[in-house]
Amino acid sequence: MDILSILEHKKLGQALSREEIAFFVRGAADGAIPDYQLSALLMAIRLKGMNAEETAQLTMAMARSGHMLTPDVGGVAVDKHSTGGVGDTTTLILAPLVAACGGKVLKMSGRGLGHTGGTVDKLESIPGMRTTLPEEEFVSIVRRVGCAVVGQSAQLAPADKRLYALRDVTATVDSIPLIVSSILSKKFAGGCQAIVLDVKTGAGAVMPALEDSMALAKALADIGALAGRKVVAVISGMEEPLGSHVGNALEVKEAIDILSGRGGGPLKRVSLFLGAQMLLASGLADTEEKALQKLNEALDSGAGLRKFQEMIAAQGGDPRVCSDVTRLPHVDGTVPVLSDRSGYLCHVNGAALGFAAQRMGAGRAKKDDVIDPAVGFVMDKRIGDRVEKGDLIATLHPRTGESARQAEQDILAALSFSPAPVPPARLLYALVTPEGVKSLNA
Amino acid sequence: MDILSILEHKKLGQALSREEIAFFVRGAADGAIPDYQLSALLMAIRLKGMNAEETAQLTMAMARSGHMLTPDVGGVAVDKHSTGGVGDTTTLILAPLVAACGGKVLKMSGRGLGHTGGTVDKLESIPGMRTTLPEEEFVSIVRRVGCAVVGQSAQLAPADKRLYALRDVTATVDSIPLIVSSILSKKFAGGCQAIVLDVKTGAGAVMPALEDSMALAKALADIGALAGRKVVAVISGMEEPLGSHVGNALEVKEAIDILSGRGGGPLKRVSLFLGAQMLLASGLADTEEKALQKLNEALDSGAGLRKFQEMIAAQGGDPRVCSDVTRLPHVDGTVPVLSDRSGYLCHVNGAALGFAAQRMGAGRAKKDDVIDPAVGFVMDKRIGDRVEKGDLIATLHPRTGESARQAEQDILAALSFSPAPVPPARLLYALVTPEGVKSLNA
Repeated sequence: MDILSILEHKKLGQALSREEIAFFVRGAADGAIPDYQLSALLMAIRLKGMNAEETAQLTMAMARSGHMLTPDVGGVAVDKHSTGGVGDTTTLILAPLVAACGGKVLKMSGRGLGHTGGTVDKLESIPGMRTTLPEEEFVSIVRRVGCAVVGQSAQLAPADKRLYALRDVTATVDSIPLIVSSILSKKFAGGCQAIVLDVKTGAGAVMPALEDSMALAKALADIGALAGRKVVAVISGMEEPLGSHVGNALEVKEAIDILSGRGGGPLKRVSLFLGAQMLLASGLADTEEKALQKLNEALDSGAGLRKFQEMIAAQGGDPRVCSDVTRLPHVDGTVPVLSDRSGYLCHVNGAALGFAAQRMGAGRAKKDDVIDPAVGFVMDKRIGDRVEKGDLIATLHPRTGESARQAEQDILAALSFSPAPVPPARLLYALVTPEGVKSLNA
Repeated sequence: MDILSILEHKKLGQALSREEIAFFVRGAADGAIPDYQLSALLMAIRLKGMNAEETAQLTMAMARSGHMLTPDVGGVAVDKHSTGGVGDTTTLILAPLVAACGGKVLKMSGRGLGHTGGTVDKLESIPGMRTTLPEEEFVSIVRRVGCAVVGQSAQLAPADKRLYALRDVTATVDSIPLIVSSILSKKFAGGCQAIVLDVKTGAGAVMPALEDSMALAKALADIGALAGRKVVAVISGMEEPLGSHVGNALEVKEAIDILSGRGGGPLKRVSLFLGAQMLLASGLADTEEKALQKLNEALDSGAGLRKFQEMIAAQGGDPRVCSDVTRLPHVDGTVPVLSDRSGYLCHVNGAALGFAAQRMGAGRAKKDDVIDPAVGFVMDKRIGDRVEKGDLIATLHPRTGESARQAEQDILAALSFSPAPVPPARLLYALVTPEGVKSLNA
């Protein structure tokens, strides 16, 4: 077996054998295969594809390329993963709610890069919060509290780390077998038995076309089933940021607001829908309606907020942020952004808003950039809203006057207006399980 | 402009612009683009192709990536290039013959690697022969003698050097735009105005299928025309070694035998045919018949052999090898290989014979291996010959007894016999010019 014959087979569009896949994944993990051969193979896979059997083998080989957790969390270990969005704080809302309903949420999250935020960065804006925990402590918190959120461990699926870095610089990110194996190998290595995937569609998503998002969702569900795990995928829109808050501490505040019953809207709605799928996948509810009812009860009774407090305390953070959000990092003053036009807000460039926040200091352009947890902005308008010139569009939380001026420009440039009324953006498109596709119209 | 967007365009099957091609070729030559991005691009080009315009741009950008010669050789600078064969000594025969007819053969050759021999290695078996000459001396020998053969200069088309090394290890050798640009860029940078290409077809060739060889030949002729050069391509078979001698000094001996009128057969026939195309491309004959007649006269009069002597002397070698081949390196004794079967020789694995010679010491497995100029073998039978068990099949020129035993096994394993008569192997398939394809049945 050698990498050249594997390259030759995939170049000719042949299916790779289980042994060939294991060979190159091992070579990716231990460094035996050089970058230039892996990147040629990634391009061949991007252009010639992989069938379901190959994708499942790739996923399992990547999962086994490093340490594999088999955690005893006292129930079905469940995780939720999003393919990447802006202002997407669902994890901080649904993890405590699902835990309050008896779920065991074993969540490993990433950091933000480019225009997308990262859950770990958001949590780290809570004073004292630790997102790197020893494995036993992490598992024990999940067992005891019902949820814990930590950073992705470098010991899990090391082959993915190398392949992902190469995909990023060789235009091979948008390959369904490569996306599926990257996402699921880390989840399987982390010991998850049930996984709810939030596949974004629309401009700014890895797979912008709905048809491609649907194919990705189906592949995720199918490969999950082939690997003996419960995987469901929800296709959701990312026409505009899901929540109104963009920025690390600001997004934590928004999650607390919703858990406290002070907030609503699309972020709450999508969080509850994804949470319901987690309860179903965990076997803690048998219909979507019952799952939603349980979650709403946990929200209304304050049980969800209490779980969030418990989790923060267990991870070393200051739980008082939940009753007093002014304990979160914040800037001294805010700056309003007023509309320079009138009309119906018809298009929001979500990626541009993400970059605006990044430029304010809320995100990273390069991996080792330091972020400012306090900065960001709150959007006051959503797609479909009528806006008059001079109306409040957004409120900036800037570190400097100059960054406020830049952010104002960036935000105004990211918005388009129509003279005629437009409907609100679609939030949920479809629910995809190994059994089939259910259309959602929300 | 950046390499990621170029990768994206080619991945989607789009044609690259002149500027994009110039950008990545410059990055390949100066090292600004890392191997892993170039190899992903090579795979994308292999799988998505390039149109004629892109291929011509790539060829010219690669030619311009280093020093470009514009030699004054006192006539049309003509070269001949083969896509790689075993026992293929045509250059050593046709270069002096064409020079004897007034041609100016400006020939840069490669070294052997794997199963194929290299003309430079063969010439270096002549005592004293220099194959690395200063540019002015090289040009001056061509002007004065009419032919000179040197090694490929590293200053010419440095982008090709890097891309070729990557293609070799990423299964992207068999791409028509990449082969065409690699061959022609070096020839254009070397200052050739007319080029005759010998495109091999059949098992062991870079493009084994005749249809693919034909497409490669057409692309070479077309891109040559787009670049304003006279390029013709001959498609020839490589079912078995062209000459009977395999090994460096042995192949020089065979060339001298033919130039002395002592040898004939397929090697002589193909050398004369290619030489005739060189005379036509140089404008030194107006019909194939007249060109062949001139070459035959040069052969019969001994003018070709005298040119070979002159060229050897000009390049520092001992010209007495031409009248006394025992001055070439040779081993002490020879070993006969007798057939272990009876039948009609119906198939010869040319690549296996090349590897047999390499294993004897005549070739290189790795680039820095040292070769033994004296070793090799002479085949006594060709496809179509009737062979009885115990007949002489080949004569080995081995360095050691062990290497002789191995070579005997390798050679016998490379031959297949049929109980029924078979015709001799086809030598010449087609002549391809920008004007069209002429079928050859020889």
